[in-house]
Amino acid sequence: MSIVERVRPGVRAMTGYAPGEQPRGARRVIKLNTNENPYPPPQEALAAIAAAGPSLRRYPEPSARPVREAAARAYGVDPGQVVVGNGSDDLLTIILRTFIDPGDTVAAPDPTYSLYQPLTAIQGGRYVAVPWPEDGRLPVEALLAAKARVVFTARPNSPTGHAAPLDQVRALCQATSGAVVLDEAYADFCRDHGLPLLDECPNLIVIRTFSKAYSLAGLRIGLGFMAAELAAEMHKVRDSYNVDALAQAAAVAVLDHLDRFQPKLRAICRQRDAAAEALRQRGFATPDSEANFLLTTIPPGRRDGAAWHRDLRAHGVLVRHFAAPGLADKLRVSIGSPEEMKAFFAAVDNLLTDNSQPI
Amino acid sequence: MSIVERVRPGVRAMTGYAPGEQPRGARRVIKLNTNENPYPPPQEALAAIAAAGPSLRRYPEPSARPVREAAARAYGVDPGQVVVGNGSDDLLTIILRTFIDPGDTVAAPDPTYSLYQPLTAIQGGRYVAVPWPEDGRLPVEALLAAKARVVFTARPNSPTGHAAPLDQVRALCQATSGAVVLDEAYADFCRDHGLPLLDECPNLIVIRTFSKAYSLAGLRIGLGFMAAELAAEMHKVRDSYNVDALAQAAAVAVLDHLDRFQPKLRAICRQRDAAAEALRQRGFATPDSEANFLLTTIPPGRRDGAAWHRDLRAHGVLVRHFAAPGLADKLRVSIGSPEEMKAFFAAVDNLLTDNSQPI
Repeated sequence: MSIVERVRPGVRAMTGYAPGEQPRGARRVIKLNTNENPYPPPQEALAAIAAAGPSLRRYPEPSARPVREAAARAYGVDPGQVVVGNGSDDLLTIILRTFIDPGDTVAAPDPTYSLYQPLTAIQGGRYVAVPWPEDGRLPVEALLAAKARVVFTARPNSPTGHAAPLDQVRALCQATSGAVVLDEAYADFCRDHGLPLLDECPNLIVIRTFSKAYSLAGLRIGLGFMAAELAAEMHKVRDSYNVDALAQAAAVAVLDHLDRFQPKLRAICRQRDAAAEALRQRGFATPDSEANFLLTTIPPGRRDGAAWHRDLRAHGVLVRHFAAPGLADKLRVSIGSPEEMKAFFAAVDNLLTDNSQPI
Repeated sequence: MSIVERVRPGVRAMTGYAPGEQPRGARRVIKLNTNENPYPPPQEALAAIAAAGPSLRRYPEPSARPVREAAARAYGVDPGQVVVGNGSDDLLTIILRTFIDPGDTVAAPDPTYSLYQPLTAIQGGRYVAVPWPEDGRLPVEALLAAKARVVFTARPNSPTGHAAPLDQVRALCQATSGAVVLDEAYADFCRDHGLPLLDECPNLIVIRTFSKAYSLAGLRIGLGFMAAELAAEMHKVRDSYNVDALAQAAAVAVLDHLDRFQPKLRAICRQRDAAAEALRQRGFATPDSEANFLLTTIPPGRRDGAAWHRDLRAHGVLVRHFAAPGLADKLRVSIGSPEEMKAFFAAVDNLLTDNSQPI
């Protein structure tokens, strides 16, 4: 018998999550496919990394206590309310391993972050996707009807970029006995955020990442905020040294200098709104976004979504295309620097006027 | 209902793994409790980290392909046979999530690395601890009788420091249809290792860490070697960006300069053998070790194991004490630099001649 036949049936049946393409090497590419910040990490973070290098022979602080303390200072919570993850993806796994036994239900509005479903499958849970209503409000009643132990709601949502009303998140928390995970990966680009709800909602978990707003996708840093008694349970489940010493050093430097990011974040939001308008002028239906990306519908014509993705790639521009129902005619475009957006629109215009493609 | 009541019963019942103490701050302490390498990381690794800093705004290569390629060069395997973990602890979790459904059995000789049991519990598995025989050989028959889907065997073993014969590992692999995990965290201090068994044992998984021999405990890098078809299943289960860009850069630098470590590793082994002899001369029964630590039995007298641990700590020396059956009268002492070992023995001699403690 092959050893692969001893692999859990649920794992064998999976295809595995497909992360966005991360091109290697020095090839010049305009990378607008995984919502990174186009600007480099702050000097304070790089200096903290350099300073920590000689101590690497030692294990890091197991619970990332310096990061929890810095997060507590930055966000006005207690260090005991913070769990630090090896990226916010690690926090999603920790949450599922804390709450979900085989057969338990996880629910989320759909479409949303495409990792929730495979992570639920790995844990043996049942995933219920509840369609977003047209108005972008949270489908609270349908989520409650799923009787889920964990509800994920990304706010702003990916790939749509919209942010459901916060009072609906509060209402969901109050109406369910399960955990509500407010995934705020893109909160720094949004008009408001959910941390103030923590005091009134003991079943709320707010998660953040340093991969989108803070230019540290390469380092894998996520923060989870929740009631301290719940954080204590999650600490049992996470890997005992899940956040390395350099990530901890950089995270503290970022949290102690959050104000450094504000001008760049505002610039990205302005660039986003201008890009939405420019796409509309070209015939791409493009709703307003509160994240650092746009979900844009390609105009009727020669190319479908997959072809736009392929042909933009041939022009050196990577965007994200999801082959899922309701998304096949759309592209998700991260907001890059002004130069990168200029290159993106040059490629778009070139393709719009390219008649070589058969109808 | 409190949200904590919705936590999985198995998690609520756990106490959680207790990692060895990692002291914070600048306090001078002789740290001989978690088997780090006493020497700093190589300059090549620190230079690679510095060079990677400006690229941190981007996600790392999802499967740590540069590391897998460097490991393939260094160890003569195919990159498809390598899975990289956020430390080898991450690989242990990935292995359990690949093979273990609730109620499935995991077995290991006992005592051994104390993380295997809690990780099995988190996954809902049943953990069978099979006592090591007096002669330190692998209890193959008893391990087979457990009918485990996964057998962990650490070689050299912690905390004993002994290495069971490799031909027994081969025999175990051939006799079981489950996976055999050969945890080689300390293989660089041992006379031989199990990678050559991979070709004949398709159910063998060999894991390594950069935390012990390679002075990078702070960075969390582990390597898993196995059949390529099994590696493909594990890639589905691991976090999609589990190894950060700086860890990847440092790991490649280490793997491309493994020869740099040989003189230091040999020095640690010499220091280890001398320390074993010095402990024996002081009345501590101390078997030979093939790892970078010694498991030593305290001589009959005023102090029990917990008291030795406490009083050495008061002298600024951290060693590891396990309150488990069969280990309560022992200390595990990591091999430090010559200066650190001198300080350790000064503290030991001070305590041996200290008559202040009541009998």
